[in-house]
Amino acid sequence: MIATVIGLGLIGGSFALALKDKGLADKVIGVDNNPANAAKALELGLADEVLPMEAAVDASDLVAIAIPVSAIPLLAVKILNRVRHQIVMDMGSTKEELCEVIAQHARRGRFVATHPMWGTEYSGPESAVKGAFAGRSVVICQREMSDPEAVEMVEDIYRQLGMPIICMEPEEHDLHAAYVSHISQVTSYALALTVLEKEREDETIFALAGGGFESTVRLAKSSGDMWIPILLKNKYNVLDVLREHIHQLQVMRRMIERDDTEGLRASIRKANSIRRIIH
Amino acid sequence: MIATVIGLGLIGGSFALALKDKGLADKVIGVDNNPANAAKALELGLADEVLPMEAAVDASDLVAIAIPVSAIPLLAVKILNRVRHQIVMDMGSTKEELCEVIAQHARRGRFVATHPMWGTEYSGPESAVKGAFAGRSVVICQREMSDPEAVEMVEDIYRQLGMPIICMEPEEHDLHAAYVSHISQVTSYALALTVLEKEREDETIFALAGGGFESTVRLAKSSGDMWIPILLKNKYNVLDVLREHIHQLQVMRRMIERDDTEGLRASIRKANSIRRIIH
Repeated sequence: MIATVIGLGLIGGSFALALKDKGLADKVIGVDNNPANAAKALELGLADEVLPMEAAVDASDLVAIAIPVSAIPLLAVKILNRVRHQIVMDMGSTKEELCEVIAQHARRGRFVATHPMWGTEYSGPESAVKGAFAGRSVVICQREMSDPEAVEMVEDIYRQLGMPIICMEPEEHDLHAAYVSHISQVTSYALALTVLEKEREDETIFALAGGGFESTVRLAKSSGDMWIPILLKNKYNVLDVLREHIHQLQVMRRMIERDDTEGLRASIRKANSIRRIIH
Repeated sequence: MIATVIGLGLIGGSFALALKDKGLADKVIGVDNNPANAAKALELGLADEVLPMEAAVDASDLVAIAIPVSAIPLLAVKILNRVRHQIVMDMGSTKEELCEVIAQHARRGRFVATHPMWGTEYSGPESAVKGAFAGRSVVICQREMSDPEAVEMVEDIYRQLGMPIICMEPEEHDLHAAYVSHISQVTSYALALTVLEKEREDETIFALAGGGFESTVRLAKSSGDMWIPILLKNKYNVLDVLREHIHQLQVMRRMIERDDTEGLRASIRKANSIRRIIH
């Protein structure tokens, strides 16, 4: 099987590595509109060859799209316009607009809309890692609109990467992704800004930073090129979650202000119940 | 050297293990006002013996206090009232009130006020781990008010645990700790509450949780018994940081609302500069 990966960054690069590592593709063709990234990806062995998009699609059995979500819907349509036997999948973090745009396409069946729930705070070809994805879930949206043969190939790949598969409507996916992924990104950026604001006044503050701070602020290293499109495409869900989060912070702030030990105890006990979800 | 550790939880238990592991104490006596914790600590080998506070202090060369910060100042005074040759240190996360309370004590010189910048989201004797502290900084406050011999012993211990030592005034410590430790705790609790609030409506949301979410919400598993006293003792600093953080979130919220790509790009580029601080 010959696979094309479009976008040789964190997600696409790691996916290319996984395809080769697991023996799932005989050849991986890379496509990247940034020539420096394409050259780097070749050098790092993420792709066996780099081609323009059209030539790559024509030569492939599977085409995986792993570019910023703002660019996925149009590219998905252009690729679907071109495919014959090929199976096309995307790996983007928002699904609603994409699924709407391709819904009535004559070759909708060749497309599988997916979102593997994995990432790190790094980006670009150098951030691609072996063994990515394993143990994380992958969401497939509107599975029933994809040809059974297309679903089978894509699910088989994700299964071999060790990913439990969850099926969901695109609206449901985008709502949940706002809660368990996109909001973490915003809070981490805001926390970094809060502390950096202070640091202008005092350079020594960071000597104290421990593991807890690193953990909560780690995502603030993430690239805006990837995240701004996600936050804007999933705008209404992100705004809702953000409003709720600001409200929760204000409630905690008032409890601290009033020395409300009992209120804090009840809130923290409730927050502690996150233990049953993350281990 | 015989050491007493008062409070056999995450910090005290890990410190007791480190003292034995590095051959720094010939014997570790444990003190804990919770009999179940004391028994568990003995069983886990955190202490060689458990004694009441008075007997333990009398039998020791070094006394380390590792209990919730709300209880440290009074206990520090009671122990100082009792010491002859002993050196006393605390390991608490706030320093201003403690240093004020012991400032004029006749035996102030026997006390070293410290804060090792290490922790995890777990608590109790079972949370104690070998190899804790290494590579993290430790703050010593009002070093000049401690006897040189006391400072020498405590610094030697921290150095052997692999901890760079930073000297700071208590006010300065509490301000910085609010920025690089206490705020992370509050945001993590609030994030857990935000998501748990949603989960009441939908049980499937957490199947999607990935590494980024886990990282930002991990601290929400932390015990209120430890953290409520810290947040209240460091109330004014925590409230200041929290106000700034809520402001940063509101600014990001407005930029998302208005599709302000340029504003988001500038903010995220600034947040990214946290890279030079955490690696």
